[in-house]
Amino acid sequence: MSKYCIGIDLGGTFIKFCLLDENLQASDIFQLPTPTTGAKDVINQMVAGGRQLMTKRGLTANDVLGVGIGSPGPMKITEGVLISLANIPGMENVPLRDEVAKGIGIHGVLENDANAAAFGEYLCGAGGTGDMVMLTLGTGVGGGIIIDGKVLHGAHEIGAEIGHMIIVPDGEQCGCGQRGCLERYTSATYIAKWATRLIEQEKRQSSLKAILDSGKEINTRNINEARKAGDALAAEVWDKAMYYLAIGCINVARILDPEKIVLAGGLTGAGDDMMIPLRKHYQALHWKATPPLTTLEIAKLGNDAGTIGAAGVAWQHFGPRK
Amino acid sequence: MSKYCIGIDLGGTFIKFCLLDENLQASDIFQLPTPTTGAKDVINQMVAGGRQLMTKRGLTANDVLGVGIGSPGPMKITEGVLISLANIPGMENVPLRDEVAKGIGIHGVLENDANAAAFGEYLCGAGGTGDMVMLTLGTGVGGGIIIDGKVLHGAHEIGAEIGHMIIVPDGEQCGCGQRGCLERYTSATYIAKWATRLIEQEKRQSSLKAILDSGKEINTRNINEARKAGDALAAEVWDKAMYYLAIGCINVARILDPEKIVLAGGLTGAGDDMMIPLRKHYQALHWKATPPLTTLEIAKLGNDAGTIGAAGVAWQHFGPRK
Repeated sequence: MSKYCIGIDLGGTFIKFCLLDENLQASDIFQLPTPTTGAKDVINQMVAGGRQLMTKRGLTANDVLGVGIGSPGPMKITEGVLISLANIPGMENVPLRDEVAKGIGIHGVLENDANAAAFGEYLCGAGGTGDMVMLTLGTGVGGGIIIDGKVLHGAHEIGAEIGHMIIVPDGEQCGCGQRGCLERYTSATYIAKWATRLIEQEKRQSSLKAILDSGKEINTRNINEARKAGDALAAEVWDKAMYYLAIGCINVARILDPEKIVLAGGLTGAGDDMMIPLRKHYQALHWKATPPLTTLEIAKLGNDAGTIGAAGVAWQHFGPRK
Repeated sequence: MSKYCIGIDLGGTFIKFCLLDENLQASDIFQLPTPTTGAKDVINQMVAGGRQLMTKRGLTANDVLGVGIGSPGPMKITEGVLISLANIPGMENVPLRDEVAKGIGIHGVLENDANAAAFGEYLCGAGGTGDMVMLTLGTGVGGGIIIDGKVLHGAHEIGAEIGHMIIVPDGEQCGCGQRGCLERYTSATYIAKWATRLIEQEKRQSSLKAILDSGKEINTRNINEARKAGDALAAEVWDKAMYYLAIGCINVARILDPEKIVLAGGLTGAGDDMMIPLRKHYQALHWKATPPLTTLEIAKLGNDAGTIGAAGVAWQHFGPRK
């Protein structure tokens, strides 16, 4: 009989589950609300979802090799312990891996959610056969690095923070305490703030002002639409963000030389409107020693990457050695 | 009887040889001049040196598991082929690995010289037990990355080019075709050029002008000495170079989170005169999410790192699996 692994992606609003078979086919993706009433309830919900999956498919602990858990927040990956979770109180120093694994009755492994998403794309999405780096452009800029088919954690389990690479000396202040981080020039949040600042503080003209005047906030979709309708400020902000993102991609190519850099997150919904200017800058700014060999591609799994990748990490830990 | 590997480091002026035993103890380090008369003579010299080592120690092909060859220049590592060598004519598309290995009568492996030097430090020098990155500050800024005990090559064998990470958007033109590369702010060559430019083109006052007036070139040792004697321009250039180098080290820490960044090359001869300002900037510019966990250290093997590391790569390829 076939064997499976379970993936669980713990988010601030929902906990997402999936089953991944030995051919790396994902199925039975569903979600449950994330309890906001403390660690015990969160763990119980994760266990309940895992058991629900097994019951639905008539699986026993003999059929399921393990559960992979992806979570945000600082954590001790090797120890399986969550240090804290920004949006859920009572999640301090929780032995999440062992509690969830024990509850379901199978082996468990913990992974950072950005790493899990990157591993999901690597296994089942936009990944190829070689090393892969994923950049997720959302509120911040998350990173995941896959080398030799494994997630890179670093010596202190704080690696792959690609959004906190400094690309502008003495640049914009970042929440992390550094200045000039890639994240401050290329996250969806920052791009919108940038346009807002140019309009409100520098009194620049733009069709986007109407959105601000109506009491709403500008988002990157507004900026892209305004740009396509001929708004000069929107075009400038969009192009400059792609310029900085291209520098980030070049730095990843120079240091890691991956086969692919996979871009994910809300901003990639712009598709070619994003990729065409990004690739233009990447080509123009790239060294001449070789043509650009590391390709830039959009992720394929969307919001399912994290849960699929978490299950993939479990396969890697508990599946048969190849 | 003990087993050995041979290391050969092909340089523009000398070819350096060593023997590395199974306890990773290097011995019998010596060098021969690099022939400038084409590939055949270079290969013959490499073979002669390897045989000389074996004869001297009374070793046969049964005692030597393999030879590791470190070389500069673009190469196809997996194929063992050197594409070209900047300073030696007739070295185009040379199957260096197989020719040298066949000549000595043992197995062979080819490695980029910067990677080999990093691997040498990792195995026998400043390396610890975790991932390590080496930056060599010389004419350029070379890089080597060791992850999970292995040299990182990248998908196209052009990884670890840390000196060509862009740290200043639209910055100084680099020879590679990019602008604002780390190398253009932190290599020994560039630091000296920078001081020279400030004096000659911007007519800044400095005690270093006397060196230029005497028809000589400024080097980084002059700059450090002038700085210590109270020269303001020298102090400014030195400090700014350490500032940029700190940004490069932070970016390596954020992306790879190695245990150590090991600094090598002529500039590190300045010792604490370099490391104290470097660590000061590294601490000040570093994020606040964690203290700086990746340590900065000076390499220990000097010019022997390349040949020892080349032998180490051979051990990794041909030694018993652990």
